[in-house]
Amino acid sequence: MVDHDTLRMSPSLRVGIVGLGLIGGSLARRLALAENCQVVAWNRYDDDRSVIYEEAEREGITCVSTIEQLAACVPDIIVLANSLASMPMVLSQLASCLHRDHTTICDVGSVKAQVRQQVKQAGLSDCYVGAHPMAGSEHSGWRYSSAALLDHALWAVTIDSQTKACYVAKIVQMIVSLCENRAILLNDDTHDQAAALISHMPHVVATALANMLCAHDEREIALMMAAGSWRDMTRVALTDPRRTEAMVVEDRMNVAQLLATLIDELSLIQRALQHGDQTECDRFFVRADAWRSEQCRQRNVLSGALRERHSTPRLVPFAQLNDDWRNRMLNFARNGEVITGMCETGLWLTSCRVGARGEQ
Amino acid sequence: MVDHDTLRMSPSLRVGIVGLGLIGGSLARRLALAENCQVVAWNRYDDDRSVIYEEAEREGITCVSTIEQLAACVPDIIVLANSLASMPMVLSQLASCLHRDHTTICDVGSVKAQVRQQVKQAGLSDCYVGAHPMAGSEHSGWRYSSAALLDHALWAVTIDSQTKACYVAKIVQMIVSLCENRAILLNDDTHDQAAALISHMPHVVATALANMLCAHDEREIALMMAAGSWRDMTRVALTDPRRTEAMVVEDRMNVAQLLATLIDELSLIQRALQHGDQTECDRFFVRADAWRSEQCRQRNVLSGALRERHSTPRLVPFAQLNDDWRNRMLNFARNGEVITGMCETGLWLTSCRVGARGEQ
Repeated sequence: MVDHDTLRMSPSLRVGIVGLGLIGGSLARRLALAENCQVVAWNRYDDDRSVIYEEAEREGITCVSTIEQLAACVPDIIVLANSLASMPMVLSQLASCLHRDHTTICDVGSVKAQVRQQVKQAGLSDCYVGAHPMAGSEHSGWRYSSAALLDHALWAVTIDSQTKACYVAKIVQMIVSLCENRAILLNDDTHDQAAALISHMPHVVATALANMLCAHDEREIALMMAAGSWRDMTRVALTDPRRTEAMVVEDRMNVAQLLATLIDELSLIQRALQHGDQTECDRFFVRADAWRSEQCRQRNVLSGALRERHSTPRLVPFAQLNDDWRNRMLNFARNGEVITGMCETGLWLTSCRVGARGEQ
Repeated sequence: MVDHDTLRMSPSLRVGIVGLGLIGGSLARRLALAENCQVVAWNRYDDDRSVIYEEAEREGITCVSTIEQLAACVPDIIVLANSLASMPMVLSQLASCLHRDHTTICDVGSVKAQVRQQVKQAGLSDCYVGAHPMAGSEHSGWRYSSAALLDHALWAVTIDSQTKACYVAKIVQMIVSLCENRAILLNDDTHDQAAALISHMPHVVATALANMLCAHDEREIALMMAAGSWRDMTRVALTDPRRTEAMVVEDRMNVAQLLATLIDELSLIQRALQHGDQTECDRFFVRADAWRSEQCRQRNVLSGALRERHSTPRLVPFAQLNDDWRNRMLNFARNGEVITGMCETGLWLTSCRVGARGEQ
């Protein structure tokens, strides 16, 4: 009998992908390049499906006509890379055809708490593990997907107190062994708050900047003058705004809280500038100096000067990850240790401390 | 006698550069590659000056020991690429040695009104034209400078009602003929307001985001998860914060006004998210749709699909730019027409409408 609460490696994996959009398509293309992996995909019918399927099949991805056919392949993993809007429908279809004793399901969405709720409502929480690859672009759809989109990507894998170890192991194996990506394990709240800070809230800010530009009297001149800083800061606002809105609204309470803090921070510097308060200005501009010097140090690490120290992974044997494996894994993440490899006997962790405390 | 109020082309130009930092160094290197241009540079004494001078001389830049020697070369143009902080001192030194009947001075700062004020105080406004190349990076200093930094750059050239045509012509010739860059003519206020919108205010926002990250409980995890959107939105906050502060403070009233508008915009969406007001969210996210579709169209232009229509320049003969040349030039900019070339008889203008009105 399979011990569901043991982390271990599988000899090979069959992965089913639901939705060949930007992320699903990129993941499918990347997995199709891996050894020991069979990729099956299903895309809901749309006008371009035959074109997408033809291209996908050429890359070694087996395409099927219905979600029932996908489930019938009994994949080790089914990745839900469909839109947020279609998630309840896809989950309810899966609930009636999934081989629950064999297939682990995960999604790739950028907000985790709500999807887990939907999975629970569909009665599928036993076999669910959350996943969020930190990759993307302002584009969407299969035609912009590429295996390279996931180069060097870090995936946040989210678990709760019920998540079974063997299911987590399959997802981690897909990420680190097949995709050659990196993974950290988090709980939903930690993930969603961090994602709100580094992605969802900045998307709102970029959108607000774009809105201001549109309302500006001399927008023609302003846009001609727009160089790197403006382009970088508004790039994500070029994304389909309905997709951005869906993402932000899904994480709305975290985003609202961070926006309130940002508004306070901006009000402070706004008043200081208006009144020419040099002391307050000085304080505002140097507050992130620890982050600046750490980023600078990281650049040196990446450029090779300090690489050795940072790229020596350590092996954590599965045997050491017993009952408290969940907490151990969460603490690895808090300490900046990332899963970068997997073998028969355990996980390889690599330190990539990128902290902003300044005491390192 | 030279008619100072006539736009015309010079057979060759000698350009003096004050300050071999990121922008001054990049401009010097670029001009040194041009035919018909002699480049002379002066860098205030610092620890690295001998190294900088040695490298600069190898690239064909003549380096001198004092600002008096620079002025004594009687350059057609002296470009003040020194720091904002040293501007009053440099201007007062120049005032005593400049050949005013021959040398035009310009700066490369990102705020124009204050520099013109300082130039006026130094008694040099007769020979001053403002200039601001839209180029840069988060780095500073000679070692990050390169001729390529100015590739495709647009320069905003600023004038007032007293600016002499022949001086403007020299600056424009340096930009379009020697640097192979593009230029628009603006007044100081239009420039400073637009620069506040597309650069100075976004620098404050990026800094505020970095400050928030530093104060976040799970910053280690957040930073590990940070992908493209965070990196892009905070890139400019990596710049030396004292340089950013100097730039923002110089344009503080424009920045303060824009921050007030941004705070209103963010407060609106903050409340909508907190209260789950879908209608207000919908409105917020689509408000910049005209800009999105225009940017998308621009990408097609750049990728060649529509290049032809946009890259056909028209010649505006100098003879047509008589008494009202200042207004004519400002209106070209408002219409999205950019100076892309100069010849014996006139200026070449190319339309690069990038507007965000949505009616084009």
